[in-house]
Amino acid sequence: MQVASQNFRTIWPDARCKFVEIIDQTKLPFTFEIARIESLEQMTHAIKSMQVRGAPLIGVSAAYGIALAMLHDDSDDYLKQASQELISARPTAVNLRWAVQRMQAKLLALQPDQRNLSAWKEAATLAEEDVAQNKRIGQHGLALIKTLYQNKSFNVLTHCNAGWLATVDCGTALAPIYAAHDAGLSVHIWVNETRPRNQGASLTAWELVQHGIPHTVISDNAAGHLMQCGQVDMVIVGADRVTANGDVCNKIGTYLKALSAFDNCIPFYAAVPSPTIDWQISDYKEIEIEQRSSDEVAYLQGLAVDGRVQTVRVIPVGSKAINPAFDVTPARLVTGIITEQGVFLPQQLQQLI
Amino acid sequence: MQVASQNFRTIWPDARCKFVEIIDQTKLPFTFEIARIESLEQMTHAIKSMQVRGAPLIGVSAAYGIALAMLHDDSDDYLKQASQELISARPTAVNLRWAVQRMQAKLLALQPDQRNLSAWKEAATLAEEDVAQNKRIGQHGLALIKTLYQNKSFNVLTHCNAGWLATVDCGTALAPIYAAHDAGLSVHIWVNETRPRNQGASLTAWELVQHGIPHTVISDNAAGHLMQCGQVDMVIVGADRVTANGDVCNKIGTYLKALSAFDNCIPFYAAVPSPTIDWQISDYKEIEIEQRSSDEVAYLQGLAVDGRVQTVRVIPVGSKAINPAFDVTPARLVTGIITEQGVFLPQQLQQLI
Repeated sequence: MQVASQNFRTIWPDARCKFVEIIDQTKLPFTFEIARIESLEQMTHAIKSMQVRGAPLIGVSAAYGIALAMLHDDSDDYLKQASQELISARPTAVNLRWAVQRMQAKLLALQPDQRNLSAWKEAATLAEEDVAQNKRIGQHGLALIKTLYQNKSFNVLTHCNAGWLATVDCGTALAPIYAAHDAGLSVHIWVNETRPRNQGASLTAWELVQHGIPHTVISDNAAGHLMQCGQVDMVIVGADRVTANGDVCNKIGTYLKALSAFDNCIPFYAAVPSPTIDWQISDYKEIEIEQRSSDEVAYLQGLAVDGRVQTVRVIPVGSKAINPAFDVTPARLVTGIITEQGVFLPQQLQQLI
Repeated sequence: MQVASQNFRTIWPDARCKFVEIIDQTKLPFTFEIARIESLEQMTHAIKSMQVRGAPLIGVSAAYGIALAMLHDDSDDYLKQASQELISARPTAVNLRWAVQRMQAKLLALQPDQRNLSAWKEAATLAEEDVAQNKRIGQHGLALIKTLYQNKSFNVLTHCNAGWLATVDCGTALAPIYAAHDAGLSVHIWVNETRPRNQGASLTAWELVQHGIPHTVISDNAAGHLMQCGQVDMVIVGADRVTANGDVCNKIGTYLKALSAFDNCIPFYAAVPSPTIDWQISDYKEIEIEQRSSDEVAYLQGLAVDGRVQTVRVIPVGSKAINPAFDVTPARLVTGIITEQGVFLPQQLQQLI
């Protein structure tokens, strides 16, 4: 997608396959900064600290993390150790495990001296697959929007960021939005701020500004009221993991929005590439919900009057906080899952296997 | 209640009835500051800017606003004009209208030269009534908690601030918490941050710190997940207006928490003094939902590293925001209403008349 009229992806390898570059998403929306990632350790840090985030992008980043590891040491032992480090960087998104396991299986089958080059190739293949999948999600989602569209501004509510910044390019939940906008449909996006990390207010809003799509930021609390007032036509979110029976694990707060959509008869969709589906579990209680630092609730980053990005504390001294990063929306609240292979009812998801 | 071991109310008149003093709540939790209010205009500003807030406190503040107006001009015309100004300061909380109308009716029946003294007396009466009502709410709520309490830490989730800072003293939603804590029960409070104004993180948390009540601040998004995980035993919120049929209009986001409580079979209560009940409407769609400045979503105040309170922007340049301040939780999601006269099912509320 475009940033100030220049094409960008969220991650790309150096031409000589010696390092990777990423958009440092912890700096957005006020600073657009490219960071160079030169080692497994730096990639693990980038994933943990959310310089790269979003299930599809984490998967591809981890694949490049393996490639960086193979530059350093192409032994079986190091490959397995690197895989373990990357998988444990963030526990909830299934794409991370999926991508690392795919890389590991591919490379273990090769002689060590063939691994370095193959790793970079396979990571690039994963990146291209992600972009292609997201484009197809966009087209399937566009077809869906057209069935609901009534020649007036169509209001889609989204939570967190499942735009192109959450993927290599194109996005998942926002792919249908970009497709609809580019097809000339009049769409307007309600952007949930998405506390505590504010990925809605900082990343989704920024993406939509760059692409010129009308949008309005709201506090997470306002979503229910807007739905009660008939201001929301459809909800589309991404996901970090979808279970085989269609439960959607996504950014904390998604469940509350799904309850409200259900209560107001508003269609609620999750848009995910198939690597986000975890076929190994059917009971969502098995999903490990990442507990992130309470500092993400207690402190907040923004632009001060003097133009500098500043961190401020927002809870009293003496108060503590906790920060579960994801929740699960049970399949009964989900209208459908938009995938690269089409739109499925949650209970029909197994057709994808 | 106590602030650093000293007793305080949120509002009190000067001994000679020449001005009013308030705790400036826009400065909490990082600065405890008393503000002097000397005129109707200053009181209207204090209500609009939320130096005083919370339905019961707004009502009493408006009563003192009338008293300040009568110092200046005790004519019928000015009394009516002052009443109108105060009522229109904030449209959603019904206590404001109720208190002003009570003051107006009382004073219009008197000769102008008797109004000044009577106004100060009546405002003080309203303040005392508020405290007495809240104490009774605390006792009824305590009895309710005892029926649910199981000799382990009892987890109550609350939204926004309906503590003593939202009233003259004691609080509404927090009155049962204070009563339970003081009675030796082990209670722990989940404090919803309550974006965009953060009254949970800044006011409720601060109150609970002062009183030594165990609590944890969470993002508004986390409430549903905690309920799914069995971490919430009860929800108690305040209200800005309750309709005759038990619909609860309260701080934006309350509806989402009520949906989640209902979905997880967790009792959901609103604690309100009877002046918060609007007997004139039964359809909640008649309630005017205050639209506040979008700057409250776009900017946020906190404590910077240098110890100064700083305002930072949290949405990109080029994005807009909207800020509806309240939503309505339909009676079907409400387990009961805790009032000074006892606990009522929403559909039994009319017994209170």
